[in-house]
Amino acid sequence: MRLPVPLSGVVPPLCTPLDASGDVDPRSLAALVEHVLAAGAAAVFALGTSGESAHLSDAQRRTALRAVVDAVAGRVPVLAGAIDMTTARVLDQARAAAALGADAVVATAPFYAGAHPAEVADHFRRVREAVDLPLIAYDIPPAVHTKLSAATVLALAEDRTLAGLKDSSGDLGALRRLLLALRRDGLDRSFAVLTGSELTVDAALLAGAHGVVPGLGNVDPAGYVRLYEHARAGRWAEAAAEQDRLAGLFALVEAGDPALMSGGASALGGFKAALRLLGVIDCATTAAPQTPLPAAAVTRVRRLLEEGGLLP
Amino acid sequence: MRLPVPLSGVVPPLCTPLDASGDVDPRSLAALVEHVLAAGAAAVFALGTSGESAHLSDAQRRTALRAVVDAVAGRVPVLAGAIDMTTARVLDQARAAAALGADAVVATAPFYAGAHPAEVADHFRRVREAVDLPLIAYDIPPAVHTKLSAATVLALAEDRTLAGLKDSSGDLGALRRLLLALRRDGLDRSFAVLTGSELTVDAALLAGAHGVVPGLGNVDPAGYVRLYEHARAGRWAEAAAEQDRLAGLFALVEAGDPALMSGGASALGGFKAALRLLGVIDCATTAAPQTPLPAAAVTRVRRLLEEGGLLP
Amino acid sequence: MRLPVPLSGVVPPLCTPLDASGDVDPRSLAALVEHVLAAGAAAVFALGTSGESAHLSDAQRRTALRAVVDAVAGRVPVLAGAIDMTTARVLDQARAAAALGADAVVATAPFYAGAHPAEVADHFRRVREAVDLPLIAYDIPPAVHTKLSAATVLALAEDRTLAGLKDSSGDLGALRRLLLALRRDGLDRSFAVLTGSELTVDAALLAGAHGVVPGLGNVDPAGYVRLYEHARAGRWAEAAAEQDRLAGLFALVEAGDPALMSGGASALGGFKAALRLLGVIDCATTAAPQTPLPAAAVTRVRRLLEEGGLLP
Amino acid sequence: MRLPVPLSGVVPPLCTPLDASGDVDPRSLAALVEHVLAAGAAAVFALGTSGESAHLSDAQRRTALRAVVDAVAGRVPVLAGAIDMTTARVLDQARAAAALGADAVVATAPFYAGAHPAEVADHFRRVREAVDLPLIAYDIPPAVHTKLSAATVLALAEDRTLAGLKDSSGDLGALRRLLLALRRDGLDRSFAVLTGSELTVDAALLAGAHGVVPGLGNVDPAGYVRLYEHARAGRWAEAAAEQDRLAGLFALVEAGDPALMSGGASALGGFKAALRLLGVIDCATTAAPQTPLPAAAVTRVRRLLEEGGLLP
Repeated sequence: MRLPVPLSGVVPPLCTPLDASGDVDPRSLAALVEHVLAAGAAAVFALGTSGESAHLSDAQRRTALRAVVDAVAGRVPVLAGAIDMTTARVLDQARAAAALGADAVVATAPFYAGAHPAEVADHFRRVREAVDLPLIAYDIPPAVHTKLSAATVLALAEDRTLAGLKDSSGDLGALRRLLLALRRDGLDRSFAVLTGSELTVDAALLAGAHGVVPGLGNVDPAGYVRLYEHARAGRWAEAAAEQDRLAGLFALVEAGDPALMSGGASALGGFKAALRLLGVIDCATTAAPQTPLPAAAVTRVRRLLEEGGLLP
Repeated sequence: MRLPVPLSGVVPPLCTPLDASGDVDPRSLAALVEHVLAAGAAAVFALGTSGESAHLSDAQRRTALRAVVDAVAGRVPVLAGAIDMTTARVLDQARAAAALGADAVVATAPFYAGAHPAEVADHFRRVREAVDLPLIAYDIPPAVHTKLSAATVLALAEDRTLAGLKDSSGDLGALRRLLLALRRDGLDRSFAVLTGSELTVDAALLAGAHGVVPGLGNVDPAGYVRLYEHARAGRWAEAAAEQDRLAGLFALVEAGDPALMSGGASALGGFKAALRLLGVIDCATTAAPQTPLPAAAVTRVRRLLEEGGLLP
Repeated sequence: MRLPVPLSGVVPPLCTPLDASGDVDPRSLAALVEHVLAAGAAAVFALGTSGESAHLSDAQRRTALRAVVDAVAGRVPVLAGAIDMTTARVLDQARAAAALGADAVVATAPFYAGAHPAEVADHFRRVREAVDLPLIAYDIPPAVHTKLSAATVLALAEDRTLAGLKDSSGDLGALRRLLLALRRDGLDRSFAVLTGSELTVDAALLAGAHGVVPGLGNVDPAGYVRLYEHARAGRWAEAAAEQDRLAGLFALVEAGDPALMSGGASALGGFKAALRLLGVIDCATTAAPQTPLPAAAVTRVRRLLEEGGLLP
Repeated sequence: MRLPVPLSGVVPPLCTPLDASGDVDPRSLAALVEHVLAAGAAAVFALGTSGESAHLSDAQRRTALRAVVDAVAGRVPVLAGAIDMTTARVLDQARAAAALGADAVVATAPFYAGAHPAEVADHFRRVREAVDLPLIAYDIPPAVHTKLSAATVLALAEDRTLAGLKDSSGDLGALRRLLLALRRDGLDRSFAVLTGSELTVDAALLAGAHGVVPGLGNVDPAGYVRLYEHARAGRWAEAAAEQDRLAGLFALVEAGDPALMSGGASALGGFKAALRLLGVIDCATTAAPQTPLPAAAVTRVRRLLEEGGLLP
């Protein structure tokens, strides 16, 4: 399926449901796909950070992506993360995603090894040349410890290496300046800017972003679709109110005790606990070595779902 | 081959020679093994950071490790890096290393995803339980962006999860305090502390470290063996003088222009250029997307080899 | 003059004009005050980061604050930065500001020395108790290397230690969550949230912030006042368009060459060059040791003022 | 008193004893001076980080420095910290120190405001030109968030701007390379390299450093003098053993609970609690807003003093 040019709308970065033994649960993953498509998702993003891509073996990644492609069945595009350290490894991941039917590939700058901006650009060009799928750059400094510069992104948008950017940097000022530069260069019709910051989607859309890839959109995809549609229609007060409600719900990422577990384990555990409480997935297990959410945290997640209007 | 308990001496983290097209060159890798064994290396470490592990595909990693195991032929232990993001992926790497004949596995804390200290400990325990080889923790904050705490290392030394530590943190004060704690707990006879800091090997040995894993030891393994033996014999002034000579030689990691390439590309390019100039390997290519060393930099490397007494 | 509760609107953080020898130029500073008041500034903030507070001696700080208080002459409130490392030193700065007629004090968390959140809260409480002026917390992680937590700010808003927050953290998601919590606790009528992020003012106001403290508001205060009024009236598309124009103008902070000078020297030099080109101040000198803007950079600043409609 | 060229030996960075109300206690400070001079200190350093310089008002700084100069009475040189954000402010501090009789000034790179290396060099040159005292650069990245580059230090050593370096960066590899470069350029006879890293003094001396400025040397100056003299005599095993004992004692900096107080408050509180238990100073109060050490922590400090042989 061809990726829209530019990609826009709500693109949930799908969680990867696991069973109690830690294996990928394709049935729950298919149910999650239905959950987000029923709400109006414009595409789905498998094997991203919310999909615990960093925690899944290659075999698990393949199982998960196959399940997503099968469940989506061509209704919307499937973006697939090709998360690995540097070019050769990303290429292997990207080729596997292409073979499994992904419609676009999402890749970060090199990590573990540092990289100069010229090397970062070369990295994306090599990936794009070797795999015949649209390529979206994933700017996620908390994970890869560098930020993609506007100059790099613009050069790669101009020469069509990149079809878009998923910006999880949290730097909305830089995002606005990038959007201005893309419009100045006539690239905003071909290059998609998607924010990954769940709490400032109204702001990103007001600045001209094309869409949103919200981890919290696993739990409440309908909320993000409403927010997106308010924004598209210029109903900014309503968009902000919806964003405020979602920001309240977002507290579920902090359900876990930071003295006992990582922020990631708390966030992923919170998303999965919510999806189980909503009846979407069967089991809230997160991948090792993430500490499981304790029962008290699950109670907190339930209360947040009630306050957010998602549970009675 | 059984790993000595504790492992000690000079353990070069082998570079991975590539041919001009970027494929692993087993012949050159075998020659590099001879270069370091002839100098007195106590073991070798394949697929570490100096081995460009982050830049090699799984197939390239297997080719490289197989070449090392074959070339070493049981003369010394072979440590193999199992460098990947989190537990499930590290396990796959560790199992592959075991299958290829590695004598020990070296793994870092989780990266890309953050991890709480309890999750870090759980990570190492799961890797050790699943793979029947000694496990060495690799503390390398510049790559993984966390530092292993002394408390975590001590707990994992006490319960025999870890056989040792490769400390590339550069924090010699913390290393000294860890060594003191290991001695206090009677663990210094079973747990190996190896420094990865090429410039302070004399200091680490003076503080009680068991050995050294020097990237620069690819280029001048004999120098590090002399340094180690001076230290073992209590000839500290001679050790420091040898360390000073090696610190001068270390400037080859900065041969590349930081305005044009990453520090890693300069360092790895410098090691490989030196090995080619010394006649050990055939080609100084580094893996993509690292910018190659320009000719002027190679000239600088040659001059440093001459100043360091390695070339006439 | 009493500070409005809560403070709202556009509050320019005044530059401190210097003459060619580096002395504070009170005449130019008075002209700058007129420049921003004529545009509709709701208050002014002297001795902030844009005021080169970190670069001014205590005597220069006093001269500058006196000039501002005199020039403002009670027309709007004068906020004064009390920028110093820890409590005792901030207290001295705050007392000096009070003696010179400031209407409120702005202080950061401790810096140079680290501080635990409990120590940060104690710091603000001690400053507030000792100086009988409203206290505004200044959250500026790039300068002080910690971020004020929402929990700390909420506690200090609840017990009336703080009258408001100037948020220069760039973390709009955290700002939104703070605003939600303030509304939940009924504190948004008494506690002012002011963003210091010049590029996302529309977004901060959409999320409920009360006002803005824009460094670029020295150069184009009328633009920020228009933006603020559009937002207050719910004209969000117009607000975003004005913000886009200002984001284009913001490029003047990058007029200097990063290979030759710090980002701060470039930004402050850019603001001052613009103010001189606009005829507001006499001299664009920045305080030592900041590298002066070269002539080519000043030409770039002029072009940006032309493009932004501020010069013909 | 003229500073020796180069300065060498043990230079304790004196704590600043306070009374229960937080005022500087000159009597205790004089006793501390006797404590370190009796042990063989080669000089003393007032108003450094261990002296809580960041926490003292200008008046308190003057009181403390006056007390030190009076107590020392010309027996050894007195170095004085001129700790402030940028050039103009450091100059005021340096002039005050000169007026009070300091024999040398110690200053950091600019902080709060960022600075380009060229601006850092200009900063030191301006301070040196304006104050007729030897100037020592203080490299303390944990406080000022930049590291002095070897190139900057070498240039400032070459042109006699700097008389030395106090290196609290913890980067012993960089220190060794700096020492090599100084020797290569014939500057090691005129430029003093002093380590501020209490746990690796043997290593720094083995690498060629001239002396040590150990915070822990407030508590056990005799230990550091023994360590220094062992090293000077080439008794490296004895030096390392003494360093090990001191590294054990160093645990007193962690007596406080990190969940309740900053690392700095714990360290300074630990030093002062030890000095009170040893009978050197009257009161262990640390400056606001540092959380005081709880009683259990003081008990821990006592035990460490007993284990270290400083209390029976």
